[in-house]
Amino acid sequence: MKVVKFGGSSLASGTQVEKVCHIVASDSERRIVIVSAPGKRFADDLKVTDMLISCAERALHGEDTSKLVDAIIERYQRIAEELKLSYTIIARITDDLNTLLKGDQSNPVAFTEALKASGEDNNAKLIAAVFQHKGMEASYVSPQEAGLLVSSDPGNAQALPEAYEQLSNLKNHAGIIVFPGFFGINKAGEVVTFSRSGSDITGSILANAVKADLYENFTDVDAVYTVNPHIVKNPKEIRELTYREMRELSYGGFSVFHDEALIPAFRAGIPVNVKNTNNPEAPGTRIVSARKNTNGPLVGIASDDGFCSIYVGKYLMNREVGFGRKILLILEDYGLSFEHVPSGIDDLTVIVRQDQMNDEIEATIVRRIKEELHADEIHVEHDQALIMLVGEGMRQEVGTAARASTALAKAGINIEMINQGSSETSMMFGVRENVEEKAVQALYEEFFAQ
Amino acid sequence: MKVVKFGGSSLASGTQVEKVCHIVASDSERRIVIVSAPGKRFADDLKVTDMLISCAERALHGEDTSKLVDAIIERYQRIAEELKLSYTIIARITDDLNTLLKGDQSNPVAFTEALKASGEDNNAKLIAAVFQHKGMEASYVSPQEAGLLVSSDPGNAQALPEAYEQLSNLKNHAGIIVFPGFFGINKAGEVVTFSRSGSDITGSILANAVKADLYENFTDVDAVYTVNPHIVKNPKEIRELTYREMRELSYGGFSVFHDEALIPAFRAGIPVNVKNTNNPEAPGTRIVSARKNTNGPLVGIASDDGFCSIYVGKYLMNREVGFGRKILLILEDYGLSFEHVPSGIDDLTVIVRQDQMNDEIEATIVRRIKEELHADEIHVEHDQALIMLVGEGMRQEVGTAARASTALAKAGINIEMINQGSSETSMMFGVRENVEEKAVQALYEEFFAQ
Repeated sequence: MKVVKFGGSSLASGTQVEKVCHIVASDSERRIVIVSAPGKRFADDLKVTDMLISCAERALHGEDTSKLVDAIIERYQRIAEELKLSYTIIARITDDLNTLLKGDQSNPVAFTEALKASGEDNNAKLIAAVFQHKGMEASYVSPQEAGLLVSSDPGNAQALPEAYEQLSNLKNHAGIIVFPGFFGINKAGEVVTFSRSGSDITGSILANAVKADLYENFTDVDAVYTVNPHIVKNPKEIRELTYREMRELSYGGFSVFHDEALIPAFRAGIPVNVKNTNNPEAPGTRIVSARKNTNGPLVGIASDDGFCSIYVGKYLMNREVGFGRKILLILEDYGLSFEHVPSGIDDLTVIVRQDQMNDEIEATIVRRIKEELHADEIHVEHDQALIMLVGEGMRQEVGTAARASTALAKAGINIEMINQGSSETSMMFGVRENVEEKAVQALYEEFFAQ
Repeated sequence: MKVVKFGGSSLASGTQVEKVCHIVASDSERRIVIVSAPGKRFADDLKVTDMLISCAERALHGEDTSKLVDAIIERYQRIAEELKLSYTIIARITDDLNTLLKGDQSNPVAFTEALKASGEDNNAKLIAAVFQHKGMEASYVSPQEAGLLVSSDPGNAQALPEAYEQLSNLKNHAGIIVFPGFFGINKAGEVVTFSRSGSDITGSILANAVKADLYENFTDVDAVYTVNPHIVKNPKEIRELTYREMRELSYGGFSVFHDEALIPAFRAGIPVNVKNTNNPEAPGTRIVSARKNTNGPLVGIASDDGFCSIYVGKYLMNREVGFGRKILLILEDYGLSFEHVPSGIDDLTVIVRQDQMNDEIEATIVRRIKEELHADEIHVEHDQALIMLVGEGMRQEVGTAARASTALAKAGINIEMINQGSSETSMMFGVRENVEEKAVQALYEEFFAQ
């Protein structure tokens, strides 16, 4: 059995939905289909979810929502018309939306949550109707009836343990299940949404619950690339990578998957296949528990900017038990999580994402470290980028660090930081932001271009 | 004005003391001479300080000390006889030793401290007598009369701020001052010793107090070497290095200077010259505040073994504010100071000196991290070595990391860890202990052999 998830761009128009029908119909193992809300049809288009959020805001401010409601309904209606569905389904969706808008506004968060989630919910109803219209045995199943119980944490819901048990019954359901992504139901029966990209989370939870053989995730790219295509033109595709590699790549700006989305599939060891709705014949990228290392030490290169480093120097620092811990404690007082802590004998640098600080917090932290820890020297450097080389093959191969640092040296790039030695799957280089792209290109050239 | 310190091997015999006389007499700027106790004359010889400690122990146990006292006196006497001094000075030293042994034993620590320190104290009296005998204008000055006030921290005394003011008067003293190293006097008038190698500390304090132009430290080597001569035969000598470089090298097993000894000279910016008593014409090694980078990116390579790494993995670790700090807090509960903390996205490794732990502490730490922090994975690897590349030139030169890691790769050495980015003066590589020497040799070859 395969659990299949389609993203917003795969469901944005009748033409796209037609492709989805073919994909589902072409493989009888594709039994559970998770759908997002209709996404963008073209670059400047609006996503239905964004329109729903605006709609909720206007309603809460007592403003007129009729134009927005019409625009939302029109999105579903266009798809229904393109695919020649009867008006019944659109009436049902319109009804649902109006009922939600007339609902209890005393709890604005719950009101907004229900409206946001309706994008996926109504789209699942529509897609089920499309499948039926095409003669496929299919039915809409709601998170409520399936028992997708979640915590009451709006915008960041977590599936409760009992959800998995209840959802496991879906495998006995006859025909194709069309299930809305993005949300679950709390114990009080209210709609609670996952974090953004939450449809991936729904798919991953369902794949785990029914112990699927495969979780197929259809998007609009042929594969996960070895490097950001905005930095390197036409980069190589990744055929297969491990969960761990995916996680390390996603840290460095690869946004194919939301980190959390992979956890339920990862826990059950279910392979994930990222595929393209517009080119379903392409093999896509498989994310697995373990892979054979056949393609050199690296699977990909990721990078991200917006880091800053806080340098602290103090003579004889390394004799002071607790010095490093005390610095981290000061950062914690301002909610700062650190990324890395390279250290010398008498100095230590904490690397943090600079959007966690403003000038005032930064000045306070510097002052506190200086005064409370009697540091000799402290300075902050902004605008650093981190480049991650990712690959489980790295450990087996002597010389990866040598190849990488030589490639950077040849490109005339000064390495601000090297962090290697904890993860067996990644190696990290710090460079100034203004040479980030040049550095990534040099590394891609070294490891992938031949 | 120069402050000059002579180590134990420079004062172990009449022949050696003769060399010291020539060195001091040959430069009228050498006005303050700090002496250690007589050291070893040959490999299996005893140091006077060690004999004095045994003597104190025996006395405290009510055992006979006469043979040991005779052996100690004999060491001074031999020197006096070789240099044809009158017996007066030996009588004075014998008297002093017997008085100390008959002293108050109600405070065993104070009793031992006074006895230990007498090695330097009596040697200063002897050397002053030698200088006078040679017709030099010289006198013994005790820490008490000079005002070298220290904290009451036996074996780890710290000079008090007022000491510097009082000691500054030494610069107005006529003739050559011979001053015992290794100890000061607390406010109660008791002798308190510095840490071992404490004569270096005395020299550094006096150099600071009189604002000497130079602090000459005479030992038995021509210079500080670029690498451990037990690992690389006949390594190049270092002509000049900065305090910071010295400190980083000394971390990695370079034992020319005790870390602390340099602080007072460092604070006053006084250059230190390490020289050889047996070859005073050799330029030796100068330790300075700043140097011109004329000899490539590195000044030296140091290494040390006996480290272990504690690996902790947890999915989504990098979202948890305080995770790293909590690990360090657990280590602190057992008095462990960490050396380095390389980190990945979902993992973090703490590198510690393994002599800080026994099997039981290790098992407890592993259990606590697992249970209290819900780590997915934790394992400890022993027998790691750290290699430090040291040099202030490193930052200016692109490609140092590339040269180093390429040299290691060519030698077939797997790099367990790279730590670069905090210190501007060093770069650290972790390797397994069994390839430490091979790694150091490969790095020496790359950076120094040409």
